Amino acid sequence: GAHVIRYGNMRDLCLGIEVVLADGRIWNGLSELRKDNHGYDLRNLLIGSEGTLGVITAANLRLFPQHAERVAALAHIKAPEDALELLGLAHDRFGHMVTAFELMSRTGFEFIAETMPEFPMPFSTPHEWAALIEVGSECAFGLHDHFIDLLGAAAEKSLIADALVADAEGRIQRFWELRERIPEANRLIGSVSSHDISVPIESIAAFICEASREVAALGPFRINCFGHVGDGNLHFNVFPPAGRGNEHFSAARDTVREAVNASVRRFGGSTSAEHGTGRVKAVELSRFGDSVYLDALRSIKRALDPANIMNPGAVLARRPGR
Amino acid sequence: GAHVIRYGNMRDLCLGIEVVLADGRIWNGLSELRKDNHGYDLRNLLIGSEGTLGVITAANLRLFPQHAERVAALAHIKAPEDALELLGLAHDRFGHMVTAFELMSRTGFEFIAETMPEFPMPFSTPHEWAALIEVGSECAFGLHDHFIDLLGAAAEKSLIADALVADAEGRIQRFWELRERIPEANRLIGSVSSHDISVPIESIAAFICEASREVAALGPFRINCFGHVGDGNLHFNVFPPAGRGNEHFSAARDTVREAVNASVRRFGGSTSAEHGTGRVKAVELSRFGDSVYLDALRSIKRALDPANIMNPGAVLARRPGR
Repeated sequence: GAHVIRYGNMRDLCLGIEVVLADGRIWNGLSELRKDNHGYDLRNLLIGSEGTLGVITAANLRLFPQHAERVAALAHIKAPEDALELLGLAHDRFGHMVTAFELMSRTGFEFIAETMPEFPMPFSTPHEWAALIEVGSECAFGLHDHFIDLLGAAAEKSLIADALVADAEGRIQRFWELRERIPEANRLIGSVSSHDISVPIESIAAFICEASREVAALGPFRINCFGHVGDGNLHFNVFPPAGRGNEHFSAARDTVREAVNASVRRFGGSTSAEHGTGRVKAVELSRFGDSVYLDALRSIKRALDPANIMNPGAVLARRPGR
Repeated sequence: GAHVIRYGNMRDLCLGIEVVLADGRIWNGLSELRKDNHGYDLRNLLIGSEGTLGVITAANLRLFPQHAERVAALAHIKAPEDALELLGLAHDRFGHMVTAFELMSRTGFEFIAETMPEFPMPFSTPHEWAALIEVGSECAFGLHDHFIDLLGAAAEKSLIADALVADAEGRIQRFWELRERIPEANRLIGSVSSHDISVPIESIAAFICEASREVAALGPFRINCFGHVGDGNLHFNVFPPAGRGNEHFSAARDTVREAVNASVRRFGGSTSAEHGTGRVKAVELSRFGDSVYLDALRSIKRALDPANIMNPGAVLARRPGR
């Protein structure tokens, strides 16, 4: 989720796995090695295959030490392009010590106020966008002062308006509670269509602009876009207008979904950024995926699960008549 | 090589690849996305497959900013277990800022003196072992002082004897030249058997001890063990005694190789740590590899290259009579 920017995806943290294969045999790939380049990378093929090639029954995970210092800010920003520039400044100064960089929209804060009015909002008047930036270090270097310098430089460039800064665990936690309330509020309101997408990082602002325009052309929808800008991974969720339930918009669902997905594809992005393909997206993958890639996947599936008994229909859609 | 400890293996740095498959079709997998979990991970399956599943014709690589600060030390240590404890201290203080941690043996320095007598050696009397430790940061935090503190703490615990410290690029470079002379000297002397192995990091000292004892039992060999302790990856190379060429020991080669490899296997290690399987090690893999794993690899190979035209015999050995 939010910390992939620093630690990588889950597959990067799996040193080894144990897997039950389709023929019932167990592969003990529970390696603890950091460097091992023998054979083919069966581990990464199985990770993310969603049980269609085998069932992972154990894993060796890589751990990281806790941070000695952690500082975070919640800052108002005008537009997603300013978030990108701020991220660039943060990376220039802190490199891999940037442990999270989340974008949130005013709609997200309005949804929290609408569904959880008792939740204490950090700003009395929310701007269009906000960023939650966190840096951390295993060693005590005095990050706080460097971080204040960064925010000063960002303010001088008019990248941020006001900002709240925290280096105490409890206060940082409150920033994260706000961030985590957003998907909760989304569920309470009920979306017309939800998207877990990624685009090349430099295209984030253009994608948000284009996809929002496409959706606006289809009806009076509210858009709540938020997510992990540092990885190019956004949650782009479309909701009914205030006061109406999503049940009135089920007819529009497919059109909205396809409008967003088409925009993702135009930017060379992925419509399965962090949550995998599953069944719903398997149909879309079979329709829009690269045919050379899909043929290779189908060959591998047939090779490792010839009887198609492993979670059939996930990742690779059943073809008509099969 | 030496910087995997900080940046990961090459596969971790490949965001996307373009591949020509066995049927002549091209898969354009040149993604730039940081997060993309659609389908199966065909990219990692092809990386390291050594042309046996496809030929990689292009790659998108991930880059990292240069360091604002870099400090390194060349320190005498008594034994590999002290190197591990020193690495632990370095990680506690600097975490992911530890960019290299190399172990070198006295034999390595003697080989340099023997084959390149003009090369200026840093210490007049080499100890049994030395470590090259490097830390770096994208941000100027005053690493030098923290690094001196680390060395002081290590000296107090008697982990290091004397140490040379450098923070100027030219002087750090001289430490690396010394390190890079070791494989050069190895080639000039000519090994009986060379090994690129990895073991779980905590087993490094025990492995060196056991494998050295096994080799000593086979004859008057010299062992030059050095490498990337931070990743558990060692080069364990066996040489003829001083004054004799390796041509006199060709009969012993297979016995020596198997003694070292058997020791690696006892520690749950890999005999193809950073250089892959190729053809020579394919035979060993087919003999000692996990049969469930090998069957899966052969199924994948048949699925993606049914006519076996892609680099046949590499990774997966030809079976007798085929």
